[in-house]
Amino acid sequence: MKPEIAKLGYVALVSSDLEKSLVFFKEVIGLEETEVIDGVHYLRAWGDFQHHTLSIEQGERGYVRHIGWRTKSKEDVHLFKEVLENKGVHVENVPAWETPGIGEAIRFKVPSGHTFEFYYDVKKPKAQEHRRSVLKNQTYKAWAKGISPRRIDHVNLHTSEDWQVTYTFFQEVLGFKLREYLKKDESSQILAGWMSVTPLVHDVALVSRQKDEIPTNARLHHLSYWVDDSQDVLRAADICREHDLPFCGPGKHSISQALYLYVSDPGSGCTVEIFTGGYLIFEPDWEPVAWNESERAFGNTYWGDSISKKELVKHTIEA
Amino acid sequence: MKPEIAKLGYVALVSSDLEKSLVFFKEVIGLEETEVIDGVHYLRAWGDFQHHTLSIEQGERGYVRHIGWRTKSKEDVHLFKEVLENKGVHVENVPAWETPGIGEAIRFKVPSGHTFEFYYDVKKPKAQEHRRSVLKNQTYKAWAKGISPRRIDHVNLHTSEDWQVTYTFFQEVLGFKLREYLKKDESSQILAGWMSVTPLVHDVALVSRQKDEIPTNARLHHLSYWVDDSQDVLRAADICREHDLPFCGPGKHSISQALYLYVSDPGSGCTVEIFTGGYLIFEPDWEPVAWNESERAFGNTYWGDSISKKELVKHTIEA
Amino acid sequence: MKPEIAKLGYVALVSSDLEKSLVFFKEVIGLEETEVIDGVHYLRAWGDFQHHTLSIEQGERGYVRHIGWRTKSKEDVHLFKEVLENKGVHVENVPAWETPGIGEAIRFKVPSGHTFEFYYDVKKPKAQEHRRSVLKNQTYKAWAKGISPRRIDHVNLHTSEDWQVTYTFFQEVLGFKLREYLKKDESSQILAGWMSVTPLVHDVALVSRQKDEIPTNARLHHLSYWVDDSQDVLRAADICREHDLPFCGPGKHSISQALYLYVSDPGSGCTVEIFTGGYLIFEPDWEPVAWNESERAFGNTYWGDSISKKELVKHTIEA
Amino acid sequence: MKPEIAKLGYVALVSSDLEKSLVFFKEVIGLEETEVIDGVHYLRAWGDFQHHTLSIEQGERGYVRHIGWRTKSKEDVHLFKEVLENKGVHVENVPAWETPGIGEAIRFKVPSGHTFEFYYDVKKPKAQEHRRSVLKNQTYKAWAKGISPRRIDHVNLHTSEDWQVTYTFFQEVLGFKLREYLKKDESSQILAGWMSVTPLVHDVALVSRQKDEIPTNARLHHLSYWVDDSQDVLRAADICREHDLPFCGPGKHSISQALYLYVSDPGSGCTVEIFTGGYLIFEPDWEPVAWNESERAFGNTYWGDSISKKELVKHTIEA
Repeated sequence: MKPEIAKLGYVALVSSDLEKSLVFFKEVIGLEETEVIDGVHYLRAWGDFQHHTLSIEQGERGYVRHIGWRTKSKEDVHLFKEVLENKGVHVENVPAWETPGIGEAIRFKVPSGHTFEFYYDVKKPKAQEHRRSVLKNQTYKAWAKGISPRRIDHVNLHTSEDWQVTYTFFQEVLGFKLREYLKKDESSQILAGWMSVTPLVHDVALVSRQKDEIPTNARLHHLSYWVDDSQDVLRAADICREHDLPFCGPGKHSISQALYLYVSDPGSGCTVEIFTGGYLIFEPDWEPVAWNESERAFGNTYWGDSISKKELVKHTIEA
Repeated sequence: MKPEIAKLGYVALVSSDLEKSLVFFKEVIGLEETEVIDGVHYLRAWGDFQHHTLSIEQGERGYVRHIGWRTKSKEDVHLFKEVLENKGVHVENVPAWETPGIGEAIRFKVPSGHTFEFYYDVKKPKAQEHRRSVLKNQTYKAWAKGISPRRIDHVNLHTSEDWQVTYTFFQEVLGFKLREYLKKDESSQILAGWMSVTPLVHDVALVSRQKDEIPTNARLHHLSYWVDDSQDVLRAADICREHDLPFCGPGKHSISQALYLYVSDPGSGCTVEIFTGGYLIFEPDWEPVAWNESERAFGNTYWGDSISKKELVKHTIEA
Repeated sequence: MKPEIAKLGYVALVSSDLEKSLVFFKEVIGLEETEVIDGVHYLRAWGDFQHHTLSIEQGERGYVRHIGWRTKSKEDVHLFKEVLENKGVHVENVPAWETPGIGEAIRFKVPSGHTFEFYYDVKKPKAQEHRRSVLKNQTYKAWAKGISPRRIDHVNLHTSEDWQVTYTFFQEVLGFKLREYLKKDESSQILAGWMSVTPLVHDVALVSRQKDEIPTNARLHHLSYWVDDSQDVLRAADICREHDLPFCGPGKHSISQALYLYVSDPGSGCTVEIFTGGYLIFEPDWEPVAWNESERAFGNTYWGDSISKKELVKHTIEA
Repeated sequence: MKPEIAKLGYVALVSSDLEKSLVFFKEVIGLEETEVIDGVHYLRAWGDFQHHTLSIEQGERGYVRHIGWRTKSKEDVHLFKEVLENKGVHVENVPAWETPGIGEAIRFKVPSGHTFEFYYDVKKPKAQEHRRSVLKNQTYKAWAKGISPRRIDHVNLHTSEDWQVTYTFFQEVLGFKLREYLKKDESSQILAGWMSVTPLVHDVALVSRQKDEIPTNARLHHLSYWVDDSQDVLRAADICREHDLPFCGPGKHSISQALYLYVSDPGSGCTVEIFTGGYLIFEPDWEPVAWNESERAFGNTYWGDSISKKELVKHTIEA
């Protein structure tokens, strides 16, 4: 039986200006800080259950160290290791709790060039009492600061690797299901794919880039946090404008039907998408929705501030 | 390997006043009509993909004929049949397409007394062109009429059968996972359970009733349709008030964290919950959240128009 | 004592394709029809109290016949006539009820070239019973169709006449107060002014155009209807996209702080702004807020789909 | 010519627990502090333009010292003094700037027993730079903390004085217009009146109480702050629940059509209504909307958490 990923876990981010990044993620985005260990800040949204969904630390430049995914069982971590090594992928073991809150893990590079970490065991620390929700099913009180999203949602990855290799790997080895995709008008070549292991339209989007566009193959375009309501995205726009941050949105994607606002962390260069709406896929026989390259602008923007024209949304960081 | 349910499919409703029910479901709730065959109206929300999520027909009294669930594969329908018959459950075969849009199916009574139908094959007819969305991933244009929900969400069932029998069956035979539950303060007796096969907090809620409260054991408290935004629930309240319909809400549940509004179809007596918000469960090791009976009022209503005091929310129909 | 305007009353619109205009205003915008007399359709929003806030009829081209304003008293109509004639303005008398719902009126051209009508007496017909709100203070049930705004809000007029003449006239003769304005960076020349007789930031905006830009001097850029909530503007965007109408927005103005969406009537060419938010001016010593031409883009768009770049928002009709 | 009130200015509140009140008003409601002078904290909302709309200081019990109203001109302050003294009302002069931000003023008791202050001159201090909005027409950045309302809206006063005396005085001497009112079913006796000098349905509500209900005649039921969107009221409910504060709402009034949430300051006992929606009255010949006592529950609550049943909403403080 194939091992399975349960969900996106966390992004391990490095910032060239930690102080700025902390203001951005804690005051503007409004994440909560679980703890700080050895200079690494472990953050999560008020509705996240795990120890952290973002870690951030000082470095010489802004980049993503790795992206963590939780598997469906502990056995799946071991099974994934086997499967990967059988494919010739080099797999590194990470001792349990070396990353605070994260048990025994494996780390490896996917063909898109990104480093993934798989683990099952996690800590789910309660919030400190004065910040804890009165609800048993919610970690923190909501609305403490800034945009105040509920939970991590997805990551958007760019790569200049061969699309056939990458999409095949994500689907056949990692078990992601293709939900929607953008393709060349005249061929089956995939330019971008929205994939998930959950009923979300995507836990990960993989975007193909021309080889000469970027210096390295593995880039993060954005990580995304979920808010509950459309108006929360408008409120996020107010907050970003008042903090003098460059952003794009609000708008609504045709692909996924979700509302978006993209804003950049001035410390790490990492873009965060504030995200809501969209649809869930419960049908077991979902046929991936295909969009032609000529429909790209409409696919990206059903209405609102277009993501096609903005410098911001061309920006990625090494991942 | 155990067969699995993929999702709630549809509710087959009978109304003692079909005309009133059609005004309610088509004009007030704002469902779309796929087709009418032999006097049965097949309805769905603008974001539902299957042939229908509600069927409604004239009868001598209002009741639920059965509740349809889609399995994860065709094989699962057969496997469920085996499993059920091994448990001594009488299983009826329903020929493919006898119910429009629904392939080969099995029908049986669960211990709570409700009739369930399992099937895999479905038709997913496109909307007529003038009502079709310009989006490839959306069935109809939204906002055509009334409250205009996106999709079916869940059903809430009442039973006077023994809780140990029913909850065990739902979990062990049908594969539902218990997400939250209400229990006696001083014992482990479950009074109500929220269960799902998806990351939704519940696809089905099962509420235990005193044996002498109701004439038959199997009742439907409500079926629920999802709207995307909190304000849509407030807008639904405006619409219900202007249509002079009895309703309860808006309010927010502590259990599931979802926003609610309950309104009754004057034709069938069936209550519909307009529902949004809440959280998704992606953690594979979710520990069911327990609420004591003494916390029932708070569990039901985090804030808003309390569902504890209203006649409306005591109302159920035979199912 | 100076005569005073109480409020914007209505816009008398002519369409070159009445049928299309009626679909637009009744189905998409969602206005209610009070009555149809001699081929003229009298429309209003569900929260408008007067007989109509928009009249629309068939003509050879799309244009605005005149813009109606209600005065604070009947005497004010006569006083305005005196004041205007003393200024050398030609004033036409319109017999009471010649325009359905509108009593004794005067009509004249303001220096910007637009035809204004002033009246006091109005009819406030109740809605037909099945469309009437259950609320005594609301004309129709809300949310019957389309975008469903609450009430008329303002008009935006373009002119190529001398700014000193027009702004002086609007303020000194008509009694509008300047609330915000856009001016040349290096001079006091006003390029656009937002003016009101109510606490709204504007009942009328007057925008100066280069003389050679347009064939005639008097143009209407848009008329505006108010919705109560931010999300209603997003819902309007969904509706406009699904009806395949060209629109601009959603976005938020810096000037007035209001949310906007601009959409064009395909029949008359008239643009409608769906509008909410913003602030009210209750201070009696309000100092007009000045924006320099170099701040124009920010003044127009605090965030969202920019109105600076769109063809749509350059479009005006004769008025 | 009659002197006129321009707008509600501020409420001078005394708290028996200043520390608690400051947490409530600054952290939960989210008001900004202009300055603290002699132990009095001067607060305002992010969209208020004057020096303060609420002052709060320590005292032996919670009560309202007086309610400030800004007149339309400086002359109006003097004219009001004349008019009041001609009616036999004792008028006290308050030297300019004795109250920070407030110029020359008069103070007097209205027949309902409440102390009103009238003034024209005000200071409109800018916000400190790091809290100042990037918008020229907005005082502070919005969304800094808590519920974060835009501006003060209205006050709700209770009295046991004769209704004919009080309503006549408010209308004929003070110039308030009656917009909606609740009356005895079988007589013209007014039980509650919603009155305004602005197009808001009410700047002040006056509610008649039985003489034996309360120890003194003049009480404040609540003061109200405006938020822009319906969802902000739901967000306020989340915030109040998480801060363990007693509240009533959300709901929608039939009278005024506004959305409400009532929450009490645990320091002073003063209730604050979070308020949005509703309609504006621009018609110069508005006929007051009459509601009979038998319609009281519906008049209070169109839908939502009823204000008729709650202890909270019976609570008033001396004023």
